[in-house]
Amino acid sequence: MFISTMQRLREALVLVFLAICSKAVNSRPFWWPSDTADSSGYCLSWRLAVEANNIRAWRTVPTQCSRHVEAYMTAGQYQRDLNLIVDSICSYVDTVTLSDDGFDAWILDVDDTCQPLLLQREACEPFDPLGFRAWALQGECGAIPDVLRLFNKLVEAGFKVFLVTGRDEETLGEATIQNLESQGFLGYQRLILRSGAYKGVSAITYKSEIRKQLVEEGYRIWGNVGDQWSDVQGDYAGNRTFKLPNPMYFIP
Amino acid sequence: MFISTMQRLREALVLVFLAICSKAVNSRPFWWPSDTADSSGYCLSWRLAVEANNIRAWRTVPTQCSRHVEAYMTAGQYQRDLNLIVDSICSYVDTVTLSDDGFDAWILDVDDTCQPLLLQREACEPFDPLGFRAWALQGECGAIPDVLRLFNKLVEAGFKVFLVTGRDEETLGEATIQNLESQGFLGYQRLILRSGAYKGVSAITYKSEIRKQLVEEGYRIWGNVGDQWSDVQGDYAGNRTFKLPNPMYFIP
Repeated sequence: MFISTMQRLREALVLVFLAICSKAVNSRPFWWPSDTADSSGYCLSWRLAVEANNIRAWRTVPTQCSRHVEAYMTAGQYQRDLNLIVDSICSYVDTVTLSDDGFDAWILDVDDTCQPLLLQREACEPFDPLGFRAWALQGECGAIPDVLRLFNKLVEAGFKVFLVTGRDEETLGEATIQNLESQGFLGYQRLILRSGAYKGVSAITYKSEIRKQLVEEGYRIWGNVGDQWSDVQGDYAGNRTFKLPNPMYFIP
Repeated sequence: MFISTMQRLREALVLVFLAICSKAVNSRPFWWPSDTADSSGYCLSWRLAVEANNIRAWRTVPTQCSRHVEAYMTAGQYQRDLNLIVDSICSYVDTVTLSDDGFDAWILDVDDTCQPLLLQREACEPFDPLGFRAWALQGECGAIPDVLRLFNKLVEAGFKVFLVTGRDEETLGEATIQNLESQGFLGYQRLILRSGAYKGVSAITYKSEIRKQLVEEGYRIWGNVGDQWSDVQGDYAGNRTFKLPNPMYFIP
C-alpha cells in the first residue's frame, strides 16, 4: 500500500515536472518569459517602465503582476539589483576627492533605501499611511545590508551623510532615531524628518526644499540615493543620483 | 542501424531536456533567473541599472551578458517593453489639451527611437561611428512600429513634431530625410540634425540647446522621447519625458 502510494506520488511528480519543463523549453533561454497566460513578460515590462520613470503615479501593482512582483522581491532578483547598484555607487564614491572643509555631503532616503518597508506589504495593496505609521512606531525595521554597507563607506570616507525622510517628525521622530541606531546607522550628520511646515507638500517639493537649505548652508551634494523618483528629481538633486528599485508603491 | 541511431539521439535529447529542466525547476517561477553560471540574474540587474540611469558611461555590454542582451532584443521582450511604454505615452497624449496657436510641440529622437539601429549591431561591440555613418547613408533603415504609431497619433492630434537627432547634417541630412519619408514619417514640423556649430558637443548639451531655441520660438514641449538619457535630461527637457530601452550602447 505504502509503496504503491509512493509510486503514484512519484508518477505525479514526474508529470508536474514535465508540465513545468514544457513551459520552460522553447527557443528562448529558459529564464525568458513566455507568452503564456502567466503574463510575466508584461510584468517585466511594467517593472522596467516603473523603474525608468516611464509609468508614474501608479496606485497599485497591476493585479496580474502580483505574483511576479512577490517573486521579484523574495526570490533573489531584488537583492541582486540592489547589490549591483550599490557596487556602482561605491565605484562613484571612490572617484570623489573630498575637501577638508567638512562640506562634502551625501543624501540618503530612509524607507526602502536604508530600511526595508517593502517586505511588510502585499503587492497589490495601495500605500496605507496609517498602517505604515503603526508599523514605523514599533521601531523594529531592519537594515538593507547593501545600503548599510554604502552608509558605512560614506561615513568612513568623511562624507556628511544626511538622512532625509518624508516620515512625520512629531510622531515618528523618536522611533526613527532609535530604530536607525539599533540597526547600525551610526555617525550620520543629521536626520531630517518632515516638520509641520511641510505637511501636505509633495515629496519632490519637500525634498527639493531641504536640499536647497543644505546647499545654502554650504554643502556640496555629491550623491543622492532613494527608491522613489521623487527622492532624486527636483531642484539641487545632487551631482549623481541613484534610483533603487521599488515595484511596490509610488510616492509623488 | 538507423533505428539504433534514432534511439541514441532520442536518449541524448532526453538528457539535454532533463539538464535544461533541472535548471528551470526550483522554488522560483520557471522564468526566474537562476544563480548558475549563465549569469542571467546579473544581466537582468545590469539592464535594469542601465535603464534606470544608475550605470552610466558604459562602453559595451558586459561580455557575460552578450547572449542575454541578444535574446532580450530578438526574442520578444524588447518589443513588449516598447509596446507598454508607447501605450503609456499615448495615455499621456490623450490628457493634453492643445491650444489653437500651433505651438504645442513634441520631440522625438531618431536612431533607436523612430528607427532601429540596435538590430544592426553586435551586443559587445563598442559604438562605431564610421560603421554607423556608412549604414545610415544607405537610407534603408526601417521604422519602429510602436513609435511610428505614436508619431502618427501626435501628428493627427495636432502636435508639431520635431525630430531631433545627433546625426551629422552635412553628410547624413539628405539620406535621413529620404529614409524617414520612405518609412512613413510624414507630416513632422522639422527635422533637426547636428550642424557644424555643434560638432564635438555632447548630446545632452546639443539637445538642450536645440530645445532652448524651440522654447524661445514660443513652443511648449509637452513630451520628449528618446532611447538615451542624454535625450531626455538637460535643460528644457519637456513636461514629460520617456526613456525607451537601449541596452546596446550609451551616448553621453
